[in-house]
Amino acid sequence: MRQLTIDLGARSYPICIGEGLLAQAELFARVLRGRSVLVVTDETVRDLHLDRLLQGLRDTKVATMSLAAGERHKTIASVESVCNALAAARVNRDGAVVALGGGVVGDIAGFAAATYQRGIDYVQVPTTLLAQVDSSVGGKTGVNLPAGKNLVGAFHQPRAVVSDIATLRTLPARQLRAGLAEVIKCALIADAAFFAWLEANLATLLACDAAALEHAIARCCEIKAGIVSRDEREQGERALLNLGHTFGHAIETATGYEDWLHGEAVAVGLLAAASLSQRMGASAAGGSGIGAADVKRIRALLERAGLPVEAPRIGSRRALELMQLDKKVQAGRIRLVVLRAIGAAVLSDDYPDHALAATLQEHFGA
Amino acid sequence: MRQLTIDLGARSYPICIGEGLLAQAELFARVLRGRSVLVVTDETVRDLHLDRLLQGLRDTKVATMSLAAGERHKTIASVESVCNALAAARVNRDGAVVALGGGVVGDIAGFAAATYQRGIDYVQVPTTLLAQVDSSVGGKTGVNLPAGKNLVGAFHQPRAVVSDIATLRTLPARQLRAGLAEVIKCALIADAAFFAWLEANLATLLACDAAALEHAIARCCEIKAGIVSRDEREQGERALLNLGHTFGHAIETATGYEDWLHGEAVAVGLLAAASLSQRMGASAAGGSGIGAADVKRIRALLERAGLPVEAPRIGSRRALELMQLDKKVQAGRIRLVVLRAIGAAVLSDDYPDHALAATLQEHFGA
Repeated sequence: MRQLTIDLGARSYPICIGEGLLAQAELFARVLRGRSVLVVTDETVRDLHLDRLLQGLRDTKVATMSLAAGERHKTIASVESVCNALAAARVNRDGAVVALGGGVVGDIAGFAAATYQRGIDYVQVPTTLLAQVDSSVGGKTGVNLPAGKNLVGAFHQPRAVVSDIATLRTLPARQLRAGLAEVIKCALIADAAFFAWLEANLATLLACDAAALEHAIARCCEIKAGIVSRDEREQGERALLNLGHTFGHAIETATGYEDWLHGEAVAVGLLAAASLSQRMGASAAGGSGIGAADVKRIRALLERAGLPVEAPRIGSRRALELMQLDKKVQAGRIRLVVLRAIGAAVLSDDYPDHALAATLQEHFGA
Repeated sequence: MRQLTIDLGARSYPICIGEGLLAQAELFARVLRGRSVLVVTDETVRDLHLDRLLQGLRDTKVATMSLAAGERHKTIASVESVCNALAAARVNRDGAVVALGGGVVGDIAGFAAATYQRGIDYVQVPTTLLAQVDSSVGGKTGVNLPAGKNLVGAFHQPRAVVSDIATLRTLPARQLRAGLAEVIKCALIADAAFFAWLEANLATLLACDAAALEHAIARCCEIKAGIVSRDEREQGERALLNLGHTFGHAIETATGYEDWLHGEAVAVGLLAAASLSQRMGASAAGGSGIGAADVKRIRALLERAGLPVEAPRIGSRRALELMQLDKKVQAGRIRLVVLRAIGAAVLSDDYPDHALAATLQEHFGA
């Protein structure tokens, strides 16, 4: 087992990553012993993993509730149902929420914990690769509106994260691959050597090798933790973690959050961000972006991971419209994350408009 | 006009109190000039005051929405409708919410501002006495669940509060009186001289005299601000502001939030807290509580303010059950605010059980 600490002063918390952690009562007892707990999960994960987690929670007073599975249930109504379940279980301010599931469960349960009685503790037990590398660090919680993804939410740090690698073996291959998109994103943002490690170890990861997964998850959490601890409320640097996401959110919104998994949309978004970066480099005096060979490497790794590299042809105008609804818009201008190099992302709002237009046309059609 | 500053470091904000402030554009421009703003109001207040506020907001880009009026609409669904309106108005992170109305509008709109895009600015324009003295200081936002009042919410400080005393003249007398319950509460907690001032000036206040209202509102805000600035997140001292509220919430929950105004329930709660305090004094060795004469003074002032002093006869067992659902419960024990003297409230969880039982029987029936 590896343990990292996310360093946020009074809100610091540990992330435990390893095989078979769900049933390890001592991990949970540190934070939850003797407290009233509501376990929130979904119907799929409940059948696979709830029993083992209840072993791990044997020192606490537990109620459970199951949400319907799927991004389409990431709504304010689901948050309300969790809050009602908390009240029914008589959970008070000294109680806690345990989120057992993927990013959707974590986001809903985390937002409910952030707002029930104006904030109670929660513990994340992510069961997808995406959730283990992404939503377990950063404290973002929230739900979708019809108008867009994650438009309502709160910053709320968990008290602990327990990532059991064994849960990844029950994951559909498509979900595992979608998680790899976020792993590749982390490497692209901050660590060229990790990107090369991924190129060398992709097959091992896809085979769910425990050591490889532990390394990849831990490295992503470290990268993300470094960024988040310097910018908890997303005033600046933290926005780097949105590499590929503004493009990706447009795809998810256009397709109603159903046909595309988040990681799949991000994969295409990463490639779109890479294309834009290449165009900026070509147009800048000093040639500050990445080159065609880098874009090719990124595309190749995404393809080997079984991820999509073609966006739906919704048209560049519609794509731009959806991107403008994104939270990253400031004073009307979309701030985007671009690559100076593999392993070096930067924020930009001075990209040439024609470079963005050409990128959108390339990926989304005229 | 009076201006106070609520001192919360980076989250400090001004409260302006005076006659005819709604239309004063320079008050709003300080915070909102050039920004996208959604004004949230209710159908009653819209017809009375929206036009004047829109004069005050002439330097900003304004959309408006009206909620149905009444505590029964203080729901998660209303928050969702505000968030959808924000998205429809294309309000981004640099936009803001302006809440024009009483406590219900302020709590809903404030919670929407706290969570839309994980938090945007908001400005409170309270139009009831209750909201001007109570919800304008402290940053509490939130909504009710079927299981209880204010069970879901967030701490979110406004960027400014503009309290126009002229709006109080359109208030039904019953609402003005309900607001006086919170004014009396502030005096009871922290300021015996202010309590005496209220005894002397009650008729002037009930007649909506501008100078008297300005003084009373400002004094309440000062008292509350002092407490909140020492304990923003309600870890300790801030709980004093709940004097009368745990009893009051039981009444509101039992009666479905409809028959009783919040301030009316608080009035009865203040008297119940006074009774309990008297019983504690009588049972303690040193006689640390208030005396029968104090309880009589409190009852007399509440009665002169036209406030109810009799609780609904829901029975002491049901009252206790509802109080136990309150957020102030820790480790199963209800923490209550009691009076050592008029003007000196303290937190207590070591009240004798028989004193609470007798108090509940006196007020709620066997």
